Amino acid sequence: MPRTRPALPPTGPVRLGPDARTALRPAVAEVSSGFWHTRREVNAHTSIPQGPGLLESAGNLHNLRLAAPAPEALSDAVAQGDFRGAYPFADTDVYKWLEAAAWQLAQEPAAAQEPTAELAAHTDRIVALVADAQQPDGYLNTWFQLRRGGERYQDLRWGHELYCAGHLIQAAVAHHRATGRDELLTVARRFADHLDATFGPPGSGRPIDGVDGHPEVETALVELYRETGERRYLDLAGYFVDRYGHGLLGGEAYCQDRVPLREATDVEGHAVRQLYLLAGATDLATETGDAGLRAAAERLWRAMTATKTHLTGGLGAHHDEEDFGDPFELPTERAYCETCAAVASVQWSWRLALLTGESRYGDLIERTLYNGFLAGVSLDGESWLYVNPLQVRDGHTDPGGDQSARRTRWFRCACCPPNAMRLLASLGHYLSSVDADGLQIHQYVTGRYRGDLDGTPVTVAAETDYPWHGVISLTVEDTPRDRPWTLSLRIPQWCSEYRVRHGSRTYDRTDAPVTDGWLRLTGTWAPGDRVALELGLEPRLTAADPRADAVRGCVAVERGPLVYCLEQVDHPGGGLDDIVLDPTRPLAVKNRPDLLGGVTTVVAAGHRRPLPDTGWWPYRPAGAAAGAGRPAGDPVELTAIPYYAWANRRDGSMRVWLPTS
Amino acid sequence: MPRTRPALPPTGPVRLGPDARTALRPAVAEVSSGFWHTRREVNAHTSIPQGPGLLESAGNLHNLRLAAPAPEALSDAVAQGDFRGAYPFADTDVYKWLEAAAWQLAQEPAAAQEPTAELAAHTDRIVALVADAQQPDGYLNTWFQLRRGGERYQDLRWGHELYCAGHLIQAAVAHHRATGRDELLTVARRFADHLDATFGPPGSGRPIDGVDGHPEVETALVELYRETGERRYLDLAGYFVDRYGHGLLGGEAYCQDRVPLREATDVEGHAVRQLYLLAGATDLATETGDAGLRAAAERLWRAMTATKTHLTGGLGAHHDEEDFGDPFELPTERAYCETCAAVASVQWSWRLALLTGESRYGDLIERTLYNGFLAGVSLDGESWLYVNPLQVRDGHTDPGGDQSARRTRWFRCACCPPNAMRLLASLGHYLSSVDADGLQIHQYVTGRYRGDLDGTPVTVAAETDYPWHGVISLTVEDTPRDRPWTLSLRIPQWCSEYRVRHGSRTYDRTDAPVTDGWLRLTGTWAPGDRVALELGLEPRLTAADPRADAVRGCVAVERGPLVYCLEQVDHPGGGLDDIVLDPTRPLAVKNRPDLLGGVTTVVAAGHRRPLPDTGWWPYRPAGAAAGAGRPAGDPVELTAIPYYAWANRRDGSMRVWLPTS
Repeated sequence: MPRTRPALPPTGPVRLGPDARTALRPAVAEVSSGFWHTRREVNAHTSIPQGPGLLESAGNLHNLRLAAPAPEALSDAVAQGDFRGAYPFADTDVYKWLEAAAWQLAQEPAAAQEPTAELAAHTDRIVALVADAQQPDGYLNTWFQLRRGGERYQDLRWGHELYCAGHLIQAAVAHHRATGRDELLTVARRFADHLDATFGPPGSGRPIDGVDGHPEVETALVELYRETGERRYLDLAGYFVDRYGHGLLGGEAYCQDRVPLREATDVEGHAVRQLYLLAGATDLATETGDAGLRAAAERLWRAMTATKTHLTGGLGAHHDEEDFGDPFELPTERAYCETCAAVASVQWSWRLALLTGESRYGDLIERTLYNGFLAGVSLDGESWLYVNPLQVRDGHTDPGGDQSARRTRWFRCACCPPNAMRLLASLGHYLSSVDADGLQIHQYVTGRYRGDLDGTPVTVAAETDYPWHGVISLTVEDTPRDRPWTLSLRIPQWCSEYRVRHGSRTYDRTDAPVTDGWLRLTGTWAPGDRVALELGLEPRLTAADPRADAVRGCVAVERGPLVYCLEQVDHPGGGLDDIVLDPTRPLAVKNRPDLLGGVTTVVAAGHRRPLPDTGWWPYRPAGAAAGAGRPAGDPVELTAIPYYAWANRRDGSMRVWLPTS
Repeated sequence: MPRTRPALPPTGPVRLGPDARTALRPAVAEVSSGFWHTRREVNAHTSIPQGPGLLESAGNLHNLRLAAPAPEALSDAVAQGDFRGAYPFADTDVYKWLEAAAWQLAQEPAAAQEPTAELAAHTDRIVALVADAQQPDGYLNTWFQLRRGGERYQDLRWGHELYCAGHLIQAAVAHHRATGRDELLTVARRFADHLDATFGPPGSGRPIDGVDGHPEVETALVELYRETGERRYLDLAGYFVDRYGHGLLGGEAYCQDRVPLREATDVEGHAVRQLYLLAGATDLATETGDAGLRAAAERLWRAMTATKTHLTGGLGAHHDEEDFGDPFELPTERAYCETCAAVASVQWSWRLALLTGESRYGDLIERTLYNGFLAGVSLDGESWLYVNPLQVRDGHTDPGGDQSARRTRWFRCACCPPNAMRLLASLGHYLSSVDADGLQIHQYVTGRYRGDLDGTPVTVAAETDYPWHGVISLTVEDTPRDRPWTLSLRIPQWCSEYRVRHGSRTYDRTDAPVTDGWLRLTGTWAPGDRVALELGLEPRLTAADPRADAVRGCVAVERGPLVYCLEQVDHPGGGLDDIVLDPTRPLAVKNRPDLLGGVTTVVAAGHRRPLPDTGWWPYRPAGAAAGAGRPAGDPVELTAIPYYAWANRRDGSMRVWLPTS
């Protein structure tokens, strides 16, 4: 049976259609203080405001001006220019920035960031540039308009035309939801209508049977359907999803064309392409009830997390082709873990969380947000990592460029920065949900979780210093008075000790009503009712499956949702590649408000291993190389910092995984 | 003081100039039977003869025909065609094949391979195509002639024009040395003269101050100087070598342009480019006595072997940019180890061996030839590996293409196959040397080592079943009668036990006259004098420096010069990623004439480790993941085959490095 639409439709990236069948519906969280508030303030006050200037200097806005059909209105310098930038998908940097700006403009007043007026003005100006650049029939891609004489859809494998359309649509939906205005939505609908008239299966009357080398338009079209109610956008998304894997792009895994998604048994190829495609497939399963797509999405998520996910939640093992790699191929220094893949992973996992109601998706979202994603953004919001390695070696020679292990102000392929901006600006929409029985809190922040039960508002306020401290204090503010409901709290998969106080009762892990990762507190609630959850944050050492060859004999330091790492700057007197951690010695915790914007460090005992004199050949008879008889080396105190904060001081080596002998 | 030219100048790739100052001079070995003879027979009877057909079908010969200035003589199909192939260096496939053919034609009668007449005819035909395609002023590059309207030297970073010239020159020198004919040498000289008139430092009167993005012409120009006596070719090589590292190519390490070679402290960037440049620099140091270049070459060789060389001798850690990677970054499944890098490593090490007289270069040559190089060629000589990984995982999804872990008949970028052909065809020139005191045997084969002492021939015949058996029987055939001289035998770096019988004396490692890897037997020799060397071939387990994170906790099986690996096909009942080797149990040796053309396998004891139920997340608290309390698993007999022979049966997983717990 179709669920009723929520009384408080969330102003976020995922809004369910009227026929959607999901376990959960999105609620919205206002983040008003604490860890993520700080990151979002930086996003709002530094990263997003710097966007227009960077898009100008990189040429993206220039391209839009030049593509407009009235170049006589342009300055001579612009009119005589050429397309700028290295890639045919340059427009998507603009669209993702617009989406970020829209979500920022949509902030609830309590969380609003100034200067909103200036942001609104930039948004209006750039929306107008986009609208002007659109061709009369709805097509829009400045690379093809400027460089290929308007030749279209001749190179779907590399052209990225539908990929660009997808990001345009997502920006337009965000702009419409955030502002209620339809200038950009009109542009997006015209492009979507053009695509709908152009692409379709043989016999459909559409001239082209094809898909884009970079999936993305699929999830965007489903959201456009949700926003407009036009079912043909949903149908078009369904057509695209099912035409991958049939050789239309040459059959390469890179383009998701080796095998149909419904038959796939593992994630493969270019990680971001795979993840966007899976987000679209999950959207389709959500709206249509398609059991085959749902089964494929659940199966592939599990295959991915079980064998192809780095400890940080990062995805993608190969620099070459930005590929997922083989099962248990989880390199450290060459982990690719593109920031965009982390964004896409959160987006996909959230769709599965809503569809299934299972807590594990929130587990991966938490891990990814705090580690693999957030490392991509500098603490000051001014520079970025495209790739997020788990190790930088002593003696590393950095190649510079987009795949540098040093933060960069903007990239030649600048997909990641605005992607991070849009996720941070819409973060409140990935944190909580409602169902017929109550409210679910997936992620813990200070602020308010807002949903509804059959149209009656439910609001729960939260205060926490998580992830530094484990106490989360919850207060019911709005509640139906006449019916019991369930407050569901996700107990993180990493958490082995916790306590919860609800009214006069206190539970711990021996007696708490936890099933499948959800702690469920059912009652008839009144405003002012309180719940206190305390998650144990003892630091811990983590090891990997023995098939993860790259980290054999190593452990990683974790605390709560945070993965830790060593940086050379904290370990004077040498590099990091001779360091050994002693796993038998206790870990200590230090609050360091002075460090990296305020972090809790974990201190471990270790030593510097005396290195063999390798001469000219670093291989030795096995017994000798094992170091028998060599001294253990000088003791050294190891200071581990949260991984997300690495590469914010001076350059040097870094390690997440540490040898223990 | 200049050395006199040898009475028997070797017909090989390196012939010293009259002013060369080296410790050793090249001798020549005829390989008449045994391990390398078999590989060379396959090269002579299968690989090289298939070359012309493959160069035809891939378009390389078509390009030469089309570039000739008289296209009216072409068939319509050719005349209307376009350049074929993906890369501007397509011509080098032809040149390397011509070089291989020339060395093959140069075989001493005893080792000659039939059908020589057919090979000679193909060679003549293709040499004529090359000559016809050359432009009147000496320039020759079919890509630029056909695709760029003859535009030249506008894109030195990517154009590969001088790289192509280098391979043309090497082919021409080989052709001249092998046949005494000068058709191809004339072409090469005209191109070299054109380069000499075009490239030079500011103020030289030459129009372009630049270097090629892919070094190679430098070593070729030195050899052209050696062949022709024209010193300006040597000077031009010197100019090129010293102009790298000054930003002429944008300053990228990839192109060897980040730092001048004389100042470099480590090998870096694209491995093959680095190695060819170092070969050229070593040639220059050899001919000019340049102490700075010599010091750089020796320093960089040591840095490379100590921290960036795989156990197989393979070089290059990154697929992306074919880069050397960081020190101790020695991945297994993503080892790049391009076959061309192995060829280049042998070429460079041999130049250093001659220059310095040190045995370690022969150690690396041996390791590379038997492992990292030879794995690139299939046993039947019909298919190839471009990259040579040290692991293929269970569940590997092969991407196909040039970087496949499955053998391929020819590549889009077909640099490796003809490179392997030319090395195999000229192999006899990398095995022995002479100096004023006698003959040095660097590599052990069945055949004859021929050199001279002050113009008097010295010949030593050898019989051995090496590397399967350790006995090498040497018989002096030609010798000066009136003076003592020293027969120097390289004791391989891997060899801990050996015996040698010389006349009535027998030595072992406790009393043999070995210094710096050379066993030196001095005496007044007579024809028929015998020496028997026996190298101990006990199989052994090898471990890596603890900084080589990728193989922590693992050992590799080696025997003699051979690195071994496991292949899935020999281990029914499962994959390889759950296998653990027990290092406390003895290794056994089995002769398997039936297997892979006849190999000796090494049998080890191991077990299949019960794998944890990972659920959806493969990371666990460190104690639990260590497997405490889990059973050791089912015992399994591990059959290790020589690495060079892998990927010659059915597809499956492969491992060189094996966990021990």
